[in-house]
Parts: sequence; structure tokens; C-alpha cells
Amino acid sequence: MNESLSKEREEQIILAARKVFAHYGFSKTTMEDISTEVEMGKASLYYYFPTKENLFQTVILHEQNEFIKKAVSLLAKQDSAEKKLRMYVEERLKFIQDLVNLGTLAFNAVRDRHAIFLKMYESFNEKEIGIVNKIIEEGKRRGEFISSIPKGYANLLMHLLHGLRLRSIKSLTSGEVDTKIYRELRREMMMTIDVFIKIIQSK
Amino acid sequence: MNESLSKEREEQIILAARKVFAHYGFSKTTMEDISTEVEMGKASLYYYFPTKENLFQTVILHEQNEFIKKAVSLLAKQDSAEKKLRMYVEERLKFIQDLVNLGTLAFNAVRDRHAIFLKMYESFNEKEIGIVNKIIEEGKRRGEFISSIPKGYANLLMHLLHGLRLRSIKSLTSGEVDTKIYRELRREMMMTIDVFIKIIQSK
Repeated sequence: MNESLSKEREEQIILAARKVFAHYGFSKTTMEDISTEVEMGKASLYYYFPTKENLFQTVILHEQNEFIKKAVSLLAKQDSAEKKLRMYVEERLKFIQDLVNLGTLAFNAVRDRHAIFLKMYESFNEKEIGIVNKIIEEGKRRGEFISSIPKGYANLLMHLLHGLRLRSIKSLTSGEVDTKIYRELRREMMMTIDVFIKIIQSK
Repeated sequence: MNESLSKEREEQIILAARKVFAHYGFSKTTMEDISTEVEMGKASLYYYFPTKENLFQTVILHEQNEFIKKAVSLLAKQDSAEKKLRMYVEERLKFIQDLVNLGTLAFNAVRDRHAIFLKMYESFNEKEIGIVNKIIEEGKRRGEFISSIPKGYANLLMHLLHGLRLRSIKSLTSGEVDTKIYRELRREMMMTIDVFIKIIQSK
């Protein structure tokens, strides 16, 4: 699609779109808002991104990749598998909040009807499970965790965290992040990671 | 609303409606189907239940109450708190499958827009958390579980199970129960209850 778009220009558009989506949310943002922000003709913007959904998808993919990069680099600085697991859950929670601020709740209503958007999240989820699995394997090698951790432990943990998030989204009445709901979500995610770490720690 | 409806007649309508919903699902069932099944004029049926949603809500409330009654009686027969917890999760899972068969997935799309339906589920969830809390307290008294179980443990467990269910509903493409997805959900719920029991058991 955007063969003639330079990497720099694409990055500019993504960052401008990100800024506008973060300000107005997905639903209220128009392609016009974004083309003004990036100082590009509306027709050119439509040429590269035929729909607002398409541009939003690119922004989310960009955010997902940035998050994975940032998380991997932060994790490398932690000296125990336990700290890594806790930090990952914390960073993930911040990331979720960022996405909600971008207007993903309204976007998800669209997404659910399009298999391509589901694929995008699936690929991200696989990367996440990969990261958590790596932390767990490292913890086993270092003797921090027991060696008999059942297969599928990382999957289950991520599914549980994902489920808590879906629950809390359901209780939101508007697309805005409710501080109380967010705090409650954070507390439940931390309790869950506590339980999961405790059960695999070597005594 | 249904002041002049005898308890027996109401039960007959609910059971007939349940049968029809289970057969056609919420979306495809018509009030006509139900009035035929219960051998009642359509106008009379509409008099007692002004909308299909209203009748469905009554059916779900009835199912919820039946489930709670059945669960409490089954739990009384188990001799350890651990067995009670496991049994409750098993019975709850069967109940969820029954509700899905009734067409709750299609119904939930309607429900989400009506606060009154949310209330109905909230009240059920509170009863559930009450049951699980009671099992945990009993386990503590009997020395089966540690006494230092954090407050909110039952809530968290139920929220995690609920979240897993929401996740698995999301991955359903039609309203039908997919055996593979159901088996996966069951496995994850059982792994979760395993972890939660292990962490609170006295050594």
C-alpha cells in the first residue's frame, strides 16, 4: 500500500495520528484532524491509509512493537525472574491504559467484526506469552523456580490477566478510563501475579 | 406485572420458554413459539411478559436460583473445603454451558445496553462470592486452609474465572458452544482452582 512512503514520513504520520487519537479518542477523530496535524493533504493521507480503521490499526501495531521493545529492554535490567514477572505485569498494565486512552474501546467494537484485527492482537499475545515463558525458563535454570511448572503456565497466566481486563472493560460505561476501575484492575492483577509467583518459587 | 399469574402457571411458562430458548436460541425464538409451547394465547403471554427480553430475563433468573439451590445442596454432601471448591467450579462450568445453550450470547448483546440486566448478573455474582467465601471460612475453621488468606481472595478467584469465560466467549464465532473451546475453558478453570487451592492449603 504505502510503497512510496518513506519510513520517516510513515513514522511522522503514525505519531501525529497517535497524538490526535489520544486527544479525541478513536470515535471522534476524523482523517481531516490527522491530515491537519501531520500537515499533509487529506487525499494523500487517504492514499496511504484508505480508512481511519486502517490508520488506527497501524498506530496500534506501532504501539505494540514499541511496548515489546521497551519491555524487553527493561526486563534485561532486572536481576531475578520474580522481579521480571512483576515488572512485566506492571508495564503491561500501563500499556493497556495507554491503549484505552487512544480509544481502543470504541475501536474494538469495529475490530470484533474484522478477522484481520483479531490477527493483529493474536500475534501480540503470542509475543507476550513468549516473553513470559522465557522469564519462567530462566527462573527454572537459576533455581529460583521449581522445575515442575506445568506446561501452559504462562498461557494461563496471560489468559487470566487478559480476562480480568475484559471484565473491567465491561464495567466501563464510557470509553474513558475510570481511575477506580483501573486501581481495582491493578490490584487484582498484582494479587494474581503474587499467587502465580508463590506457587512456582523454590522454597 | 404478573400479579394475577399463579406460581404454578408462571413456572409452566418459564419451563416452556426455557425449552424453546434451548432449542432455537434467544435470537431465533419468537413469543409465538413460546405461546404455542405453553398453550397460551399470544396476547396473554404478552400481558405477563411485555417483551421477549423480559421473559428471557425471568428464565435466566429462574436458572440462576435453581443453580444456587442445587450447588448448595451438592456442597453440603462434600466433606472437605477443597472438594467443595473443586465441585463448585465444576458445577458452575456446567451451568455456564447451559446458559450458553439457552442463547445467552445473543442475549448479552442486548443486555449490555440495559442496566437492569447487569443488576441481575451482579446479584447472582454476589451470591456466588458468598458461597465461595463460606467454603473458604469453613476450610480455615477446620484447619484445612491457612488462616492468613488475604481479604478479597474469593472475589479475585471468581473474577478470574469470569474473565476466562469472557475470553472464551470472545473467541466464539457463532452462538454455539464449541466443544474444543469449552474443553480449553474447562482446563484453564481447573488449573486456576488448583493454583488457588494449593496456595491456601495448610502444609
